Amino acid sequence: MAVLPITFLSDYGYEDEFAGVCRAVIAGIVPEAKVIDLTHGIARHAIREGAAVLANALPYAPPGVHLAVVDPGVGSPRRAVAVRVAAEERLLVGPDNGLMWPAIEGFGGPVEAMDVSLSRFRLEPISATFHGRDVFAPIAAHLARGAELSDAGEEIPPDSLVALELSLPVIEPGRATAHVVYVDRYGNAALDVGDGDLPETGLRMGHPIVVEHEDRSHDGVFALTFADVPPGTLILYQDAYRKLALALNRGSAAETLGLVPGDQVVLRPGD
Amino acid sequence: MAVLPITFLSDYGYEDEFAGVCRAVIAGIVPEAKVIDLTHGIARHAIREGAAVLANALPYAPPGVHLAVVDPGVGSPRRAVAVRVAAEERLLVGPDNGLMWPAIEGFGGPVEAMDVSLSRFRLEPISATFHGRDVFAPIAAHLARGAELSDAGEEIPPDSLVALELSLPVIEPGRATAHVVYVDRYGNAALDVGDGDLPETGLRMGHPIVVEHEDRSHDGVFALTFADVPPGTLILYQDAYRKLALALNRGSAAETLGLVPGDQVVLRPGD
Amino acid sequence: MAVLPITFLSDYGYEDEFAGVCRAVIAGIVPEAKVIDLTHGIARHAIREGAAVLANALPYAPPGVHLAVVDPGVGSPRRAVAVRVAAEERLLVGPDNGLMWPAIEGFGGPVEAMDVSLSRFRLEPISATFHGRDVFAPIAAHLARGAELSDAGEEIPPDSLVALELSLPVIEPGRATAHVVYVDRYGNAALDVGDGDLPETGLRMGHPIVVEHEDRSHDGVFALTFADVPPGTLILYQDAYRKLALALNRGSAAETLGLVPGDQVVLRPGD
Repeated sequence: MAVLPITFLSDYGYEDEFAGVCRAVIAGIVPEAKVIDLTHGIARHAIREGAAVLANALPYAPPGVHLAVVDPGVGSPRRAVAVRVAAEERLLVGPDNGLMWPAIEGFGGPVEAMDVSLSRFRLEPISATFHGRDVFAPIAAHLARGAELSDAGEEIPPDSLVALELSLPVIEPGRATAHVVYVDRYGNAALDVGDGDLPETGLRMGHPIVVEHEDRSHDGVFALTFADVPPGTLILYQDAYRKLALALNRGSAAETLGLVPGDQVVLRPGD
Repeated sequence: MAVLPITFLSDYGYEDEFAGVCRAVIAGIVPEAKVIDLTHGIARHAIREGAAVLANALPYAPPGVHLAVVDPGVGSPRRAVAVRVAAEERLLVGPDNGLMWPAIEGFGGPVEAMDVSLSRFRLEPISATFHGRDVFAPIAAHLARGAELSDAGEEIPPDSLVALELSLPVIEPGRATAHVVYVDRYGNAALDVGDGDLPETGLRMGHPIVVEHEDRSHDGVFALTFADVPPGTLILYQDAYRKLALALNRGSAAETLGLVPGDQVVLRPGD
Repeated sequence: MAVLPITFLSDYGYEDEFAGVCRAVIAGIVPEAKVIDLTHGIARHAIREGAAVLANALPYAPPGVHLAVVDPGVGSPRRAVAVRVAAEERLLVGPDNGLMWPAIEGFGGPVEAMDVSLSRFRLEPISATFHGRDVFAPIAAHLARGAELSDAGEEIPPDSLVALELSLPVIEPGRATAHVVYVDRYGNAALDVGDGDLPETGLRMGHPIVVEHEDRSHDGVFALTFADVPPGTLILYQDAYRKLALALNRGSAAETLGLVPGDQVVLRPGD
């Protein structure tokens, strides 16, 4: 049986050895496995941000085992889970705190789920605070080398998994009330509005827009890409995951407008 | 002969190409080798911090070649060394400045050591400042592909290796005087106190503690994990490497208390 | 046919999933490929810095496919290109904005070039802003698995590639007027002066120097390596890529002197 690739996303950062130790554990169990680090730069404990990034990224990864760890509740009774999804041959492994939910939904929902908190594949002795190393990584590794999902833990009803609903925009004639989902390194702010939400709002590609945030209002343009506008211009654009986003050409929209994840912005056609 | 995996830890950071060029050099010598980056986020020139992280991480890695570079003395007469340890089939490669010492001790001590400063496996011409690329990485690569340790340099007495003793706590009735070993991205401060040191101190799991640092005193709890206390609570806990550590649930103990590596803290039972 | 290794350099950073998604796309197309991350820490949109780092690093990488993405003009009519160079069997893939030019020149110049903007290997639908994922990574992956360069796009004249000339120093009797090419994590500032430029300037190893920057003048030493001078001393030294660089032993020359890429410095012999 072929060894499955393992993708790995976390909020472990790069300053510490956390992600590296997980990779070391995986290499000890399944030396042939390819580990694809999606990112370890998710903001600390930012489940919603991690969930959105994971759901965006995984469709670009080959089928395999998808390890994800953003786990503020480590040591609490939150479950550790391994989940098979409907679409393709994909297994997700991580904390049952909603982090993996949007990705699971994107792959057609869960069809088989295990509580792996007491998995026979765990490292012993298990620590109270580093379940990435002691639970999630070894379980992902054993699944990658061909272990049956049913051997990884205790079966649980797929519909008992913790759901995490990402924010939804309010679409009205002449306006969209949206929310910042995450901010990338370039200061671009991803919103929860999709292309299909637009017709009612009157927002049209190539036309001016107004962005209201807190008590301020900013003029911009709905553009196809950064290259269409002068440096310093605020643009609304369709990002690489087919959601709308705000950017400042060669600047930082998040910094200039003061946007952080969860913030509400109102988008209106400009004059 | 099977190619050995190579773990890699350094203070090269991620902004620059230093770690990447070392990986490139390794790939040129031994294309089949798996390189497991433990972290390149060790603080610049922080030998003691790097030593503690390396000693913590390596037992979780499969046997193989362990490359480590935190090297403030590059270009000085400090030796470059490759060391075989007593436990398992592990070879450590790096500067002879104490960085690898606690890990070597953890694996039963050195049993064979080579000065590889003038190794035949070096890249030529050798630079004065980038021995990661020119000395350590190529030697690690040749060892991973099966070269004999004795071919890597000039034999030196294992007991001539530079030892680095990590700090030790002072345990007294009713108090432990400990030291911060390193601070992780979450602001958790790892101390040099182990579980076994505790009985005399009167510190007990589930009970209040007092932490004295510089001229201030802080109330906290000795808890099993973050999840046991309200957000914002200072906790003493056993970390994932079986040492005690200070954390602020969903906050930064290091920032709030002003802790940096080397700092002394006094732990006492609270009321 | 053997799968080629892929090196990967970008300004994607580590906070986001950009580089990880590119690696995921590559793994989906060519699971056996080894991806060697050189760095993703190039400053945002810093084409000149990225170009210098890439040209420095690639000679240390094994022949293969060299993916590079620093792409402020993504979405503009700038071409996406794949280029075969004269020396060895190396293919470079990235935006045609000069980023790859110094590396291409270093390998003897381009001998075959394709505009891959509309490549059959692109992911569909293509986004306006993430050509690393949709264009460059999949093309690099197909080339790594043995696709012919001529199948990757439309042939273009190699001499139509955008050239990027790195800055050049002005060498005069008794002085060198140099420029900062990039600054590394240690605060060392790489200059555009090579060793061969030195005889006319009167700068000599082991002798004092004066560094003029903006309206200030700093005393230092031309030394072989950091270890030759006391901590805090400003040194001029030959860096690991055989260019001169400024460093402050155990400090940051860039911070102390206020050096940023592009800055001009005058080097003179001291007294």
